[in-house]
Amino acid sequence: MKYPSALSLLTLLLFLMMHPSFSQPRPRDLGVPFGILPAGPLNAITDVPGVKVGHLTKIGESDIRTGVTAILPHGGNLFQEKVPAAIFVGNGFGKLAGVTQVQELGNLESPIILTNTLSVAAGIGGVVRYSLSQPGNESVQSVNAVVGETNDGYLNDIRGMHISPDEVVQAIQSAKTGQVEEGNVGAGTGTVCFGWKGGIGTASRRLPESLGNHTVGVLVQTNFGGNLQIAGVPVGEMLGKYPFKDALEKSDGSCMIVVATDAPVLERNLERMAQRAMMGLAKTGGIASNGSGDYVIAFSTAEGLRIPHSVPSQALQKAEFLGNEDMTALFMAVIEATEEAIINSLFAAETMVGKDNRKMEALPREKVLEWLKKSHF
Amino acid sequence: MKYPSALSLLTLLLFLMMHPSFSQPRPRDLGVPFGILPAGPLNAITDVPGVKVGHLTKIGESDIRTGVTAILPHGGNLFQEKVPAAIFVGNGFGKLAGVTQVQELGNLESPIILTNTLSVAAGIGGVVRYSLSQPGNESVQSVNAVVGETNDGYLNDIRGMHISPDEVVQAIQSAKTGQVEEGNVGAGTGTVCFGWKGGIGTASRRLPESLGNHTVGVLVQTNFGGNLQIAGVPVGEMLGKYPFKDALEKSDGSCMIVVATDAPVLERNLERMAQRAMMGLAKTGGIASNGSGDYVIAFSTAEGLRIPHSVPSQALQKAEFLGNEDMTALFMAVIEATEEAIINSLFAAETMVGKDNRKMEALPREKVLEWLKKSHF
Amino acid sequence: MKYPSALSLLTLLLFLMMHPSFSQPRPRDLGVPFGILPAGPLNAITDVPGVKVGHLTKIGESDIRTGVTAILPHGGNLFQEKVPAAIFVGNGFGKLAGVTQVQELGNLESPIILTNTLSVAAGIGGVVRYSLSQPGNESVQSVNAVVGETNDGYLNDIRGMHISPDEVVQAIQSAKTGQVEEGNVGAGTGTVCFGWKGGIGTASRRLPESLGNHTVGVLVQTNFGGNLQIAGVPVGEMLGKYPFKDALEKSDGSCMIVVATDAPVLERNLERMAQRAMMGLAKTGGIASNGSGDYVIAFSTAEGLRIPHSVPSQALQKAEFLGNEDMTALFMAVIEATEEAIINSLFAAETMVGKDNRKMEALPREKVLEWLKKSHF
Amino acid sequence: MKYPSALSLLTLLLFLMMHPSFSQPRPRDLGVPFGILPAGPLNAITDVPGVKVGHLTKIGESDIRTGVTAILPHGGNLFQEKVPAAIFVGNGFGKLAGVTQVQELGNLESPIILTNTLSVAAGIGGVVRYSLSQPGNESVQSVNAVVGETNDGYLNDIRGMHISPDEVVQAIQSAKTGQVEEGNVGAGTGTVCFGWKGGIGTASRRLPESLGNHTVGVLVQTNFGGNLQIAGVPVGEMLGKYPFKDALEKSDGSCMIVVATDAPVLERNLERMAQRAMMGLAKTGGIASNGSGDYVIAFSTAEGLRIPHSVPSQALQKAEFLGNEDMTALFMAVIEATEEAIINSLFAAETMVGKDNRKMEALPREKVLEWLKKSHF
Repeated sequence: MKYPSALSLLTLLLFLMMHPSFSQPRPRDLGVPFGILPAGPLNAITDVPGVKVGHLTKIGESDIRTGVTAILPHGGNLFQEKVPAAIFVGNGFGKLAGVTQVQELGNLESPIILTNTLSVAAGIGGVVRYSLSQPGNESVQSVNAVVGETNDGYLNDIRGMHISPDEVVQAIQSAKTGQVEEGNVGAGTGTVCFGWKGGIGTASRRLPESLGNHTVGVLVQTNFGGNLQIAGVPVGEMLGKYPFKDALEKSDGSCMIVVATDAPVLERNLERMAQRAMMGLAKTGGIASNGSGDYVIAFSTAEGLRIPHSVPSQALQKAEFLGNEDMTALFMAVIEATEEAIINSLFAAETMVGKDNRKMEALPREKVLEWLKKSHF
Repeated sequence: MKYPSALSLLTLLLFLMMHPSFSQPRPRDLGVPFGILPAGPLNAITDVPGVKVGHLTKIGESDIRTGVTAILPHGGNLFQEKVPAAIFVGNGFGKLAGVTQVQELGNLESPIILTNTLSVAAGIGGVVRYSLSQPGNESVQSVNAVVGETNDGYLNDIRGMHISPDEVVQAIQSAKTGQVEEGNVGAGTGTVCFGWKGGIGTASRRLPESLGNHTVGVLVQTNFGGNLQIAGVPVGEMLGKYPFKDALEKSDGSCMIVVATDAPVLERNLERMAQRAMMGLAKTGGIASNGSGDYVIAFSTAEGLRIPHSVPSQALQKAEFLGNEDMTALFMAVIEATEEAIINSLFAAETMVGKDNRKMEALPREKVLEWLKKSHF
Repeated sequence: MKYPSALSLLTLLLFLMMHPSFSQPRPRDLGVPFGILPAGPLNAITDVPGVKVGHLTKIGESDIRTGVTAILPHGGNLFQEKVPAAIFVGNGFGKLAGVTQVQELGNLESPIILTNTLSVAAGIGGVVRYSLSQPGNESVQSVNAVVGETNDGYLNDIRGMHISPDEVVQAIQSAKTGQVEEGNVGAGTGTVCFGWKGGIGTASRRLPESLGNHTVGVLVQTNFGGNLQIAGVPVGEMLGKYPFKDALEKSDGSCMIVVATDAPVLERNLERMAQRAMMGLAKTGGIASNGSGDYVIAFSTAEGLRIPHSVPSQALQKAEFLGNEDMTALFMAVIEATEEAIINSLFAAETMVGKDNRKMEALPREKVLEWLKKSHF
Repeated sequence: MKYPSALSLLTLLLFLMMHPSFSQPRPRDLGVPFGILPAGPLNAITDVPGVKVGHLTKIGESDIRTGVTAILPHGGNLFQEKVPAAIFVGNGFGKLAGVTQVQELGNLESPIILTNTLSVAAGIGGVVRYSLSQPGNESVQSVNAVVGETNDGYLNDIRGMHISPDEVVQAIQSAKTGQVEEGNVGAGTGTVCFGWKGGIGTASRRLPESLGNHTVGVLVQTNFGGNLQIAGVPVGEMLGKYPFKDALEKSDGSCMIVVATDAPVLERNLERMAQRAMMGLAKTGGIASNGSGDYVIAFSTAEGLRIPHSVPSQALQKAEFLGNEDMTALFMAVIEATEEAIINSLFAAETMVGKDNRKMEALPREKVLEWLKKSHF
């Protein structure tokens, strides 16, 4: 519908300059439509002011294809200034640490870590080490580390457990605002999605003034399967790669989804927002298969909603927040940004050879784009 | 421990004057201890300012032993001025209506109705009728009725469905602040508890100034079984009436629990308070048997937390509320008040003859009190 | 992709003969693709052997546009022969009765009733009456009625509460196997979906032999909004009808979804299947807006899994059921059938004039089909 | 009630011989009553055939007072032969790892590890290492480690993180059937309960033949507060140690509870059993304070319910299990055994001096026993 007849050379050059390491153009820039709400300036989770992302990518000789991605809700001391947060479980075949405390207390007190399935211990270890050593946390004796994972064992020597707590701390410390690298980076280094190379993806939505001007940002680690659909087009079927076609096309796998917003939303409504991310995943053809660990972690960065670690007894928490009635637009923003972030991860990921010389091809972008053009755009 | 050597005549006279229809003295007044926090002036859910309770008791010739109890969080238009609320399911073998909307939206928009199992439809019908007809609700097309029940079919001709929506409206309209009648009234008319006549019970706790001066009130409809324990004393065993002793002593049944507080607590922490009510029930020897419908509905009457039905788009809800750290004292208040409310229902209920001339004896109060005295008080 | 270049006259004639009251051809028959799994012979929930559906449609002079739809898991005494069941809450702004008992006990003991929001009491009343009067239920004193609803108050005089318990019983008694009428019938009589006339829709999937040969059937009552997408094509945007475009295009509303299967699946995995139905809804552009009551009720008709009401103490329940590993294909079946059932409801529903002479147009089928043809099929 | 007038010398001698390291006599042996169901022969979780417990206790010079307790549902390869399991969250201020996978899949595939709050990473690391290295698990790439904790930071240098994954493996490998050491051992080494030295406790119940002859075993790691009540007697108040009395008597802290049974119970009913453990905790005066991480993990060892890791597609799982109606006695067994296990931990724990020369006194057993005698026994 909004597909440009041709991409001007100028636009292309701008891409090459803006994107790190001359990465692939993103689907939206190529005209692929994703819903009706406008994206933020970076079309990334970092469009939510203050949110930082850090990647540690580990590609070694001996079958190591893994990494860590850290998402920080703000740049301060997260333990001392917690943020309202919620977690929704799309399918719980996963090892996400820290779930129950977030659900019980309604807040997040540490960076969110994404990594591989067998490195959750390293993730927790790193977060604890980082938190204990932050200035001001000298007497802290309890930290709720939120560490998610997907299983990169097809390309990565996952049993080798090649992530150390130190590397997790590095990922946290390298986190920054601004552009977010996508594809084969961080926790997405060795992942596989819809039978193609998956990885990290991100996207955002900015609600119009009349709907509050809030931003919603999403970051995904894609490692799942299903019947791939891009902007509604049944690309999986066209490529002959879909569930139950044959033994190879198993649809198992997982997707970690992080949703950030600057909208002043408390934990109950954050949970509702988190639940909608699975609806965005559904629109890409994901089916939340039995073997999936599909989790959504949502938080609000609204400064007025910060929860100080130490409060005097009986001190009332003062907050201004959106009511239920204003949630619908935010729900839609989550759905759209999640769908786009997943597709972004597929467009950004490059072909990779990994463990035992296994090769995972990148999505055939040109062919797919041609089909998309011929379709309804 | 705090047992008075003798009850002065004056105190006794005061009871007789204060209590409606010369009802039984309450356990606390007889020296039975229930925890360490002080009760409110009425030791009733109505100690929470604004809370109203209405009973409709229906004792008819033809085996009718049932009724309705309505609890109103405030005296205004509840649909237009909703209150934060939560529901905890202790054991879900019950028909409580309205659960998911309270959980999703975090609020209550109607009176809470308690009645018998097969009259939930009448309960909803009554609440809907009442709500649609309230001034200001002329355009309302959706009402979430919260209607709980226990099964009074041992003494009551429950299959006769003797409660009408009109009678539910009457119960609502008769609701008032002040003293709450206990025992064989309202929804407790035909209930059975621990093998003795059960009924309605209520109690409250008032936190000391240093803990915020908040009030917690509890009202219960007791119709459950287990191994009765009063103030820690194994009365059930002493009376030879306990689960699995023989076929008669089945412990099935249900308990509806309503928790009110004027503490400014939002829905997530109200749910945590609700969960604690089951711990109070446990202290009476309740076991939440398979056949129990044990539910706790908790709400806050704090005026600053009211949720107007109609709000302009993007209008921020401003609220001042207690944080997680101040919950512990409120938890303890819920536990203590629930335990006492249940025991109160047993002391207030009188022997009743009902359906098919079945007789359910009142708890043998004198014998029990004697044992309690000999024990550790 | 599978779109027939032209619809032969013969096929068309067959439709007209097969479908009751010369109803509209269904999207699948017109070549609209919905996933990769084959549909059952009727493409209806009644492809699951034994499942019966009954509609009571009420279109009266005075603004009455409502009805009842009853779904019966089997033709026997449901109270005496319960079926494993689960409920998933997509968005809980609704009044679904019976939720907690299904969740606690893992079974369904009554017909499922769908109706309008203010007639849930009538629904419960009808189910209770029906259940108490069934031969063999003479001593039953407790029935868990599962009654869902959506709000048809735009076209229907919902405040008039025009459904009686008797009519609910009629809907149950009229239930039959075989073809299921879609569109403006039963509980879908007055509903609105994506800004067009909604209604009842149904679809099914039959897994291939290698995946167990099981059938999954879905029935929906569509009354919700969002950004309509049909087989991936952004029809809502093309028709200029999508959320937040203007005040009229509000996306609120609800969707009741019933999932039946003959696969031997116990309640935990039925809940997982139920959760996937929301992913099918997502693929139609639904967003589970704040005001939605989106619920999924799933049950298995597998005879070996029936739960008799009365069992001797300590009698072991013997069951053979599918493990987690075999769920993925069933998940995909649920997603596909739900998407198709929703679109079916839109294609079947006809333009309706209702309360206050409000008119709700049917989806412009011809225009939409033309777009779909031009698109990727 | 059942209090022996005097403990015979013989019995005492038998104790001394039977119990490791001449530990304290247990409350039951001293006549303290705990409900009406009989205990198993060891009155320990290991009365459930096949269950093994291993402790690693770490008491070092430099303020180290911590440890690990491992509970193994059976002696085989747990990953290859999973057991049905469930988790109930009493209060989620804790870091229990592995929750969502147990809830989603209904099974447990690894030993349960208990340790201190900041050693959860070590716990996961140890379980992963152990599982990967077990014969038969050579291709395993995903392990769901269930690791619970309480905070022993009052007596232990918790920030030092003195538990290593190797030590966790040692605890697993040392696990054995038979007597279970209680008190200051394993994960209970440095814990504090009701203001006294807490620790590990265990108890069991054996249902009579008529109720199925099943065994329920419970093991607890006690580190929580409240208003201590022993067999109904308000010991906390009598000792002048109860919540809000003064700053010292803070009631925060946590309790990990593991429930084992040989009864053939599937995951949904195991979750219901788990929920009842919190009712047992309530009877000791626990209040599940805001800061508590109170979790219950329940599993069934019934051989017919084992879930093999690898099953052929479409292979039906055959199982014989108890229905809902037979749960009540098991619920009661859980409540009674949990209450007794907690009190057992208090009677077994000895006074300990730890970090910064802080001293935590053991419960004054003699004084307490005297009070109990004077009370209702």
